[in-house]
Amino acid sequence: MTIKLTDVAKKAGVSPTTVSRVINNYGSLSQKTIDKVHQAMEELNYVPNSLARSLQGKGTQLIGLIFPSISNPFYGELVEKIEENLFNKDYKVILCDSARDTEKERSYLRMLIGNKVDGVITGSHNLGIKEYENVSLPIVSFDRYLGDTVPIVGSDNFLGGQLATQALIDAGCQNIAIFSGKNDSMSPTNRRVDGYKMAISKADLCEHTFHFPSPTSPIVKSSEIKQILEEHDFDGIFCTDDLTAILTIQQLEKLNLNVPKDVKVIGYDGTQFIQNYYPHLATVAQPIDEYANLLVELLLEKIKHPEKELKNFELPVKVIKSSTL
Amino acid sequence: MTIKLTDVAKKAGVSPTTVSRVINNYGSLSQKTIDKVHQAMEELNYVPNSLARSLQGKGTQLIGLIFPSISNPFYGELVEKIEENLFNKDYKVILCDSARDTEKERSYLRMLIGNKVDGVITGSHNLGIKEYENVSLPIVSFDRYLGDTVPIVGSDNFLGGQLATQALIDAGCQNIAIFSGKNDSMSPTNRRVDGYKMAISKADLCEHTFHFPSPTSPIVKSSEIKQILEEHDFDGIFCTDDLTAILTIQQLEKLNLNVPKDVKVIGYDGTQFIQNYYPHLATVAQPIDEYANLLVELLLEKIKHPEKELKNFELPVKVIKSSTL
Repeated sequence: MTIKLTDVAKKAGVSPTTVSRVINNYGSLSQKTIDKVHQAMEELNYVPNSLARSLQGKGTQLIGLIFPSISNPFYGELVEKIEENLFNKDYKVILCDSARDTEKERSYLRMLIGNKVDGVITGSHNLGIKEYENVSLPIVSFDRYLGDTVPIVGSDNFLGGQLATQALIDAGCQNIAIFSGKNDSMSPTNRRVDGYKMAISKADLCEHTFHFPSPTSPIVKSSEIKQILEEHDFDGIFCTDDLTAILTIQQLEKLNLNVPKDVKVIGYDGTQFIQNYYPHLATVAQPIDEYANLLVELLLEKIKHPEKELKNFELPVKVIKSSTL
Repeated sequence: MTIKLTDVAKKAGVSPTTVSRVINNYGSLSQKTIDKVHQAMEELNYVPNSLARSLQGKGTQLIGLIFPSISNPFYGELVEKIEENLFNKDYKVILCDSARDTEKERSYLRMLIGNKVDGVITGSHNLGIKEYENVSLPIVSFDRYLGDTVPIVGSDNFLGGQLATQALIDAGCQNIAIFSGKNDSMSPTNRRVDGYKMAISKADLCEHTFHFPSPTSPIVKSSEIKQILEEHDFDGIFCTDDLTAILTIQQLEKLNLNVPKDVKVIGYDGTQFIQNYYPHLATVAQPIDEYANLLVELLLEKIKHPEKELKNFELPVKVIKSSTL
């Protein structure tokens, strides 16, 4: 049985309106009434909504993190850094691995609202703006537009796409393809495609854009990549994430094409993991530590001042030139 | 028995209203009163923000997961699978990335107890048995002994060590080294070392055991591996985790040694990530999906029947032969 506001009112011997006023801290109330209501709330362990609690300066100290897949090193590192950052500020995280599953993400969002977390950081891309707009919790978004009131932290994807393509051009490539995620105008990888197109057009080259619907298993994706490579003759490939770049290099090697002699490859993300365990891969490195710091800072600001409008941040990226270029 | 606000008041020798004021941080209070209330709360382990449902005996439906580092694909995949499994059973997870940091793990354990999660699954290896024995929450351990009442799920590390070493012997290696984690008798990787020793002794070969104190940054570890490789002349190396195997292969290549012609290498863990993105690496694959299923099943059993003694499980592993052998 859930304790209701009316139970608190009954216990305190006041009207529900009075309880609401105490919770929402408005209207004229005597100190005695305020005390009675607070005592009844504590005795019943009544948990008012997050707004009320934040008025009292006390939240659950829980933050929901909704991210697509922590077994992807990019999200693994980002979630790990966010968790570390929140831990140092006395927050714990509820992890919601949305697994690119719309129903799961929706269900999590409902659970998070119901469980009254203090806020949410989401890097998941399943749900539309509508579903996030209905959420009154403080939300900060990683790299995706979720409505005018939700601040975004992400990389300068357009510039990143330009830089990656330019690195291939500078390395002498003339016939450059881009392997990207699904073709969705809201997706951050599509801004990378725009950057690619801009660089290709500036250099008077031809565009070769390929989209892979996500989620795609690495095995399916590999076979699609193989087919593309067999049908075309590229000398440079920009993959909008490092894992696709690794699969591409595997397929090039299977076709007895030498990287970088025959085909040059550049990825995107540049996690610590890739830099340590795939140091030969050229990539565009995203500032994961800075993302984590900023996402947490903005969320805490949003929790403190729910009405305050916060800016979006497009953080700079950098090309890591390596032996696949 | 759940501790109530009135118990705290009694213990602190103040009125319930005063306790409520301290908790809600309003009204004028002396530091002495605040201290008294906080002390009583701590002594009684009273948690004001616990969810209303826990008072009603329904549980919080929250499970704490303490794991060393989700940016390591092995723990990333394991945590992802556990989360998925728990989600399907209407539980949410609080993620505690212990970052191989003893203080952080201890602090998390306290927070989890205070926040009244329904149970804990831990795969972290910082704290001693003592600290876990004092915890009255249902706990299940991944691959490490934490006291007689804590069931363990892990791989048959001894057999895994034997199989990996035997694979190198079968491939013709005569001078086989093992690169393992820190030399700690409680560590699961040390059972892999025991398996290695058994296989080496059976084949009448010489042992060459090297331990790397953890946490070691990949850069430091690479430089230590380089020194070992310069000073010795192995034709086979068993690394007790795949990431160390990747660093070892990198250093062998830098020394112009061909893998597998000059030196054969086998790792351990065999995550989906490694199988997809490092398919050439021979390894001993752990059954991550089965771990997740079993850890969750045992924990839910433990939550339902706290007094029931549960068995430990050593799950079988399998060698994945690949081109580094």
